[in-house]
Amino acid sequence: MTIGMITDFGENDYFVGTLKGVIRKINPQADIIDICHGVPSYFIQGGSYVLEKTYRFFPAGTVFLVVVDPGVGTQRKLLLATAAGFSFVAPDNGILTPIFTLGRDVVVREIDRDRFFLISGSSTFEARDRMAPVAAHLSLGTAAADIGSDTSEYVVNPEYHPQLLPPDRIEGRIIWVDKFGNIITNVPGKWLFEKLGGGGFKHFSLRLNDREISEYRQNYASAGGQPFLLVGSHGSLEIAMNRRHAFRELKAALYQKFTIVLS
Amino acid sequence: MTIGMITDFGENDYFVGTLKGVIRKINPQADIIDICHGVPSYFIQGGSYVLEKTYRFFPAGTVFLVVVDPGVGTQRKLLLATAAGFSFVAPDNGILTPIFTLGRDVVVREIDRDRFFLISGSSTFEARDRMAPVAAHLSLGTAAADIGSDTSEYVVNPEYHPQLLPPDRIEGRIIWVDKFGNIITNVPGKWLFEKLGGGGFKHFSLRLNDREISEYRQNYASAGGQPFLLVGSHGSLEIAMNRRHAFRELKAALYQKFTIVLS
Amino acid sequence: MTIGMITDFGENDYFVGTLKGVIRKINPQADIIDICHGVPSYFIQGGSYVLEKTYRFFPAGTVFLVVVDPGVGTQRKLLLATAAGFSFVAPDNGILTPIFTLGRDVVVREIDRDRFFLISGSSTFEARDRMAPVAAHLSLGTAAADIGSDTSEYVVNPEYHPQLLPPDRIEGRIIWVDKFGNIITNVPGKWLFEKLGGGGFKHFSLRLNDREISEYRQNYASAGGQPFLLVGSHGSLEIAMNRRHAFRELKAALYQKFTIVLS
Repeated sequence: MTIGMITDFGENDYFVGTLKGVIRKINPQADIIDICHGVPSYFIQGGSYVLEKTYRFFPAGTVFLVVVDPGVGTQRKLLLATAAGFSFVAPDNGILTPIFTLGRDVVVREIDRDRFFLISGSSTFEARDRMAPVAAHLSLGTAAADIGSDTSEYVVNPEYHPQLLPPDRIEGRIIWVDKFGNIITNVPGKWLFEKLGGGGFKHFSLRLNDREISEYRQNYASAGGQPFLLVGSHGSLEIAMNRRHAFRELKAALYQKFTIVLS
Repeated sequence: MTIGMITDFGENDYFVGTLKGVIRKINPQADIIDICHGVPSYFIQGGSYVLEKTYRFFPAGTVFLVVVDPGVGTQRKLLLATAAGFSFVAPDNGILTPIFTLGRDVVVREIDRDRFFLISGSSTFEARDRMAPVAAHLSLGTAAADIGSDTSEYVVNPEYHPQLLPPDRIEGRIIWVDKFGNIITNVPGKWLFEKLGGGGFKHFSLRLNDREISEYRQNYASAGGQPFLLVGSHGSLEIAMNRRHAFRELKAALYQKFTIVLS
Repeated sequence: MTIGMITDFGENDYFVGTLKGVIRKINPQADIIDICHGVPSYFIQGGSYVLEKTYRFFPAGTVFLVVVDPGVGTQRKLLLATAAGFSFVAPDNGILTPIFTLGRDVVVREIDRDRFFLISGSSTFEARDRMAPVAAHLSLGTAAADIGSDTSEYVVNPEYHPQLLPPDRIEGRIIWVDKFGNIITNVPGKWLFEKLGGGGFKHFSLRLNDREISEYRQNYASAGGQPFLLVGSHGSLEIAMNRRHAFRELKAALYQKFTIVLS
C-alpha cells in the first residue's frame, strides 16, 4: 500500500527520514512516496493546494500523511479523513479543506485512540510519534474505525476558495510558486470560464500590484517576454512569463490577494 | 523494473511526486529512483550531462525518464531511445545527445501512439500526461515498438562535446557545478590526455576569466588553497578548490566557455 | 533489508542517485531510504548528530551509509561498525562517534578487503566505488567479518559531547539548524536535568552571543516572540522562537560554542 507524504519539513533535515524509519518499522512493505516536502513553513493553505492537485494521481487506497502543523503539541486534534477511496491523516487546522468537500462518502474522524502512537507524550514532533504510525497501520489494513471516532467538528478554511464579488469581480489568492517562478492561484480555470460565460462576460483581466494582465496562452513556450495567464496542468489559473521567474519579476508575495475583472 | 528520473523540476514542488503517483498507478511494482531533479531550469545540456554520467550505474533494463523541456506543449516530438540495454524517454530537444552515440544498437523512436497517454490534450505537463505513463508501461514490459516508430530525425546538440582548435587549443564548457562548488566541464579526462600525448604535448593549462590554472591533483584533500584541475569521479575534467566553492570564487558561469592550452 | 543514507551530498546533484543505482544493481530488493543529504558540506559533527538521532527509528538490521568525507581519496580508513543490531559504513573521521559508545556489543572493523569494491582506484567518490557496494552486500546478508577486520584504532571526536565546567557551567555547541530556524544543541535534555538536580541547582540559563535565555517551554506554539529553550523531539536542548527563524535572528553560527549557567 502506498503512503504519500506532503509536509513543510523540507528535504534538508532528518525529519522526513525519521518518518520513513517509523513507517518502515511498522510496515516493511509500505510503498513510501515523497509527494512534496517543500510547502513553505507553516503555510497550511499551500499544503491543502498540493494535496488537492495530486491525490487523484495515486492508486486507490493510498494513505496521505499531510503535515503542516504550526500548532504541534497544543490541544488541536489529529484527524483521519476517508474519501474517494483514499485516507488522509493530518492535524485539525484546515489543511484537509479540499478533501472535506470531495463527495458524499467523506468521513472525518478524530484520532482519539492512542494504541498506535509511538510515544504518548510527544509535544514537538507528532508527525513522528502519532501521525506516521497511524498512517503505517492504515497501510497495513487497520480499519479507520479502529483509529478514531466520527466527528463533525473540525476546522475548515473559508479562504481557501476564491471569492465572487458581484457583479464583475473575483478575488483570488496566490497559493503556490513553482521552481520556474510560475505564480499559481487558487482560481480553478474551469470555474473561471463558467463564471465568465454564465455572467455573459467575454473577457477577463487580472490585477496584481500595479500590473494588469490580460494576455491568455495555451503553453509557456509560445509567449513573448510579457506576463500572461494560462490554466496550468493542474487546472488552476497561473500567471507566467516564458523562461522568466514571474513571481520575482512581478514582485508578488505568497498568499497575496489579486482581483480578476470580468468584462 | 527500475525507472530512474532526471528532471529540472526541483524537489520543492509537487511535480516529481505527481509523476510517482502516475507511475505507481500503472505499475505498482515499479522501482522509482530519483537520480537528479536539480538540473538548472531549462538547461538541457545539464540534463544530458547527468544522464551520461549515471546511466551505466543502473541495472540492465532500467527506463530513464529525462525531462528538461522548455518546449513543453509545442510541436516538438517525444522520443523513446533504446541503447545498451536501457530505455530513455525524453523530449526531442537534444537532451539524449550522449545516448545517440552509444553504439550500434541505438534505436530512436518517435512516441507517436497515444494509447498510453493519460490525457491526450496536455500542454504544460507532458511529463505527467505522456512521458511518465510511457515509462511506466515500458517498465511493465511493453515493447518499444508498440510505443513509437523508428525515426532518424531528431535533435542532436553539436555543442555538447568540447571543440578541438588546432594546433594547440581545446575549447570546453562548464556543464555542472556540484554542491561543493566544484566546476565540472564537458572535457573527458581520457580524451584530454589522448590529445595531449597524441599531439606530442606534455603540459596543459586552463584559462577561465582572468585565471590560468595548471596545477593538477589526484584528490581534493591534498591541495592547498589555490584552484586546481582534477579528473573527477565521473571522468570529466574539474576545476576545484579544497574545501572552497570554486565556482563562486572564480566567478564562473554555467555553460561558460574556457580554453585549454596545450604545450 | 533497509539501507539508510546520511550524507552531505545534497539533493541537487546526481551523487545520491548514482549511489542508488550502484546499490540497486547489487541488490535489486534493497529498500533504500534517504535519511538526510542536507548535512552541511564537510560538517562531520552534523552527520554524527543526524545518525545519533535517527538510527533507533529504523528496523533491526538496517545498514546505515554515513558519508561526510572531506578526506576522500586520502589514506584514511573506511569503517564498518556493528552495534545494537545495526550496521554502519563510514569513513574513519569520527563521524561514528555516537555509535562507538552504544554498548558492549559494538564491533568496529576496518574495511580492508576490496573484493566488493566497484573500482579499486577511486580517489574522489569512494561512496560510490567502495562504501555503497559494501552497504549493498551487507544488505544481502554478507557477514561483516567477510568485509573487514576488527580494529581498535579509529578516530573518535572528543568535542562531540558537551563539556562540564565545574562548579556551575556547561559548555555546549550548536550542532544543527532545522528548516524552521530552531537551533539544536549537543546538550541532551536528560543529561542537563540530571546535572541540574544532581548538583543541587534549580535554574539554568543559556548565554549565546550577547543574549541570556532562560525561558523554558514544552512546545513551540505556546511561546511569545522571545527566544526560549525547549527539549526537542529528539531529546536535545533547542533554542527556538515561535514561528520565527531563531538561528538568523540570534545571529548564531553552526558549531558555535555557548555557555549554560546553573544556579
